[in-house]
Amino acid sequence: MKISASQVWSAIVEIRSRAPVVHNITNYVVMNSTANALLSLGASPVMAHAVDEVEDMVTIASALVINIGTLSPPWVEAMDAAARKARKRGIPIVLDPVGAGATPYRTRTARDLIENVSPSILRGNASEILALLESKAKTKGVDSTARSDSALEVAQRLSEIYECIVCVSGETDYIIDGADITRVMNGHPMMPRVTGLGCTATALCGAFAAVSESPALAAAEAMAVMGIAGEMAADVAQGPGSLQVRFLDALYRMSEEDVRRRLRTEG
Amino acid sequence: MKISASQVWSAIVEIRSRAPVVHNITNYVVMNSTANALLSLGASPVMAHAVDEVEDMVTIASALVINIGTLSPPWVEAMDAAARKARKRGIPIVLDPVGAGATPYRTRTARDLIENVSPSILRGNASEILALLESKAKTKGVDSTARSDSALEVAQRLSEIYECIVCVSGETDYIIDGADITRVMNGHPMMPRVTGLGCTATALCGAFAAVSESPALAAAEAMAVMGIAGEMAADVAQGPGSLQVRFLDALYRMSEEDVRRRLRTEG
Amino acid sequence: MKISASQVWSAIVEIRSRAPVVHNITNYVVMNSTANALLSLGASPVMAHAVDEVEDMVTIASALVINIGTLSPPWVEAMDAAARKARKRGIPIVLDPVGAGATPYRTRTARDLIENVSPSILRGNASEILALLESKAKTKGVDSTARSDSALEVAQRLSEIYECIVCVSGETDYIIDGADITRVMNGHPMMPRVTGLGCTATALCGAFAAVSESPALAAAEAMAVMGIAGEMAADVAQGPGSLQVRFLDALYRMSEEDVRRRLRTEG
Repeated sequence: MKISASQVWSAIVEIRSRAPVVHNITNYVVMNSTANALLSLGASPVMAHAVDEVEDMVTIASALVINIGTLSPPWVEAMDAAARKARKRGIPIVLDPVGAGATPYRTRTARDLIENVSPSILRGNASEILALLESKAKTKGVDSTARSDSALEVAQRLSEIYECIVCVSGETDYIIDGADITRVMNGHPMMPRVTGLGCTATALCGAFAAVSESPALAAAEAMAVMGIAGEMAADVAQGPGSLQVRFLDALYRMSEEDVRRRLRTEG
Repeated sequence: MKISASQVWSAIVEIRSRAPVVHNITNYVVMNSTANALLSLGASPVMAHAVDEVEDMVTIASALVINIGTLSPPWVEAMDAAARKARKRGIPIVLDPVGAGATPYRTRTARDLIENVSPSILRGNASEILALLESKAKTKGVDSTARSDSALEVAQRLSEIYECIVCVSGETDYIIDGADITRVMNGHPMMPRVTGLGCTATALCGAFAAVSESPALAAAEAMAVMGIAGEMAADVAQGPGSLQVRFLDALYRMSEEDVRRRLRTEG
Repeated sequence: MKISASQVWSAIVEIRSRAPVVHNITNYVVMNSTANALLSLGASPVMAHAVDEVEDMVTIASALVINIGTLSPPWVEAMDAAARKARKRGIPIVLDPVGAGATPYRTRTARDLIENVSPSILRGNASEILALLESKAKTKGVDSTARSDSALEVAQRLSEIYECIVCVSGETDYIIDGADITRVMNGHPMMPRVTGLGCTATALCGAFAAVSESPALAAAEAMAVMGIAGEMAADVAQGPGSLQVRFLDALYRMSEEDVRRRLRTEG
């Protein structure tokens, strides 16, 4: 798929004007930072995980984001309930299998969720994506030990089996729709030194899925905006602390000119 | 009620010198940012939610802050126990009904808490305050869809029924004590783009209530200091990321001159 | 014990090249900020607390950090299980008894954990350390009310009873190994105004313990790097908000020259 700067910019404008509600069931580490990223972009984040209310919250949301970063059984139950409701309503679901491969519990839960949740977009790093199909895949905690291109074949099989977009993030981000591959080459090497930017990419996929005509386009837009904001931030940052702050500023300030000048993608 | 710059400044000085312990039972999203705001202001925050210890923690606190942002049944149980103890000790209780109106579970829990907790100060945005009495009030997630003045009548009824101060925050903040209304016009339009600044306002109400002669005065002081710090931050911020950072710096650096020059209020 | 700038610098280089996985079972308030500190330093943090996976996560970790900041019974169960596994594997365990003395539940849990966990390093402020042996010790929430030197005798007894390094942080940090005392005088008075920098010190102890030849050396290195990063940050910060941001930048940028020029320690 080819994506253009105009498409990315239109989607940003759409999010800024419509402020879609993105319901996140996510991990403790990134709740604050992903909520801030969604607000800086122009979306309206909601964090809610109680079984008593997730279905009602889904009812007012335009996208559902599920992230297993600090999972435990009651949260997984809420994820299942929210996803069932989201499917029924036809809103996009984005799933982030954080740390799949690191422990059997995570790998098993991630695999169960893919089956049960039927995500529109599945986003992870190469280690996580590999672990979803290959039982021998090794991961080192929650950081990837594999390059993003090494997971391409597995990602394509996952995309076909589960009929979803698979987004493998890394130095190059791959957006995989069956046989079709979109590459996004934006980003900066300091980004992995900020915790939860992968989770933030997943959350932004939710915001873009709420306004875009296809999950594939939404995932490509989200990864492009992540990378461009990261580059803008790195231009003025002095380390990971200021990178995180300036990244939020960049999401808020990003102009059509920024997108046009920086977007690097191949379809 | 009329509040003066001298009153606001005296309360700041008092917090800085006494460092009152503010016990927060709050949501996962804002625990870090509200603790930082309380520390920057000069208070001593404690976050504790286990039923096993909340009553003991209340015993060493000068104010209790209850926030339902990411509520679930065990946390609500702890909120009830902590509030009972706080009432017994006579320390002020501040309640934030985050997202009331968004789901029936939240609305019901918020209403139950007001009954059981008997808050000294109830602080929310217009949508949340409306939802506490009007069953048809609509909210869009946790962000307000109503202007703050639209909730004035409901806020006055709540203030009378529950004999508490109701603080409706928005472009203008209203501090309502039955028939008496205080307006605070400080603040900056970029503030809603930082997650949890509403929750931070609630936490600051706790710190001011610990040192002020009345809950109404405390709520007005807290809203004034929030708004002034937001303005000081916006003067040097380049987006929501740096706004949040500079907001904390401003709470720490705020001088009598800053308060005098910026305070905009009507009694 | 005497520590030199060369030792501190070698340990930093080692962490940056090996990126040891540090498994944290920690509190909600600091999960984001301690993960960011570990990443900025060059380590690879993992946050996982489910009883279903903590033992497996310990298996891929080089150090385990346990912090009771927002404890509740299921988390304590996971802490115990993780610690048993870590002992079996022989990886270092760092324990932070946050708020011990503030409530009986915390004091009791902290004491039980020391018995059960057999930490390599126990790190706390003076109030917390005192509360572990003295039943009359008073603490004011989670902030220390005692000077770090007042806890020296109790720290030495704890070190002997539990055969662990006890690190008492404050204006001067004390690293106590039975009768041996190392002092680190780095740091800045604004640091206690940032929430969770004590917890961050504990997390860094985990990273240094993963690469250092002894827990005592690791604790001294961690406290030195904390203090030096705090000084570097304070040189450019305008308040606690920017201090936190610049602290992360400093961990990332710290050079051999920075360590040599700033290290202040006595053995």
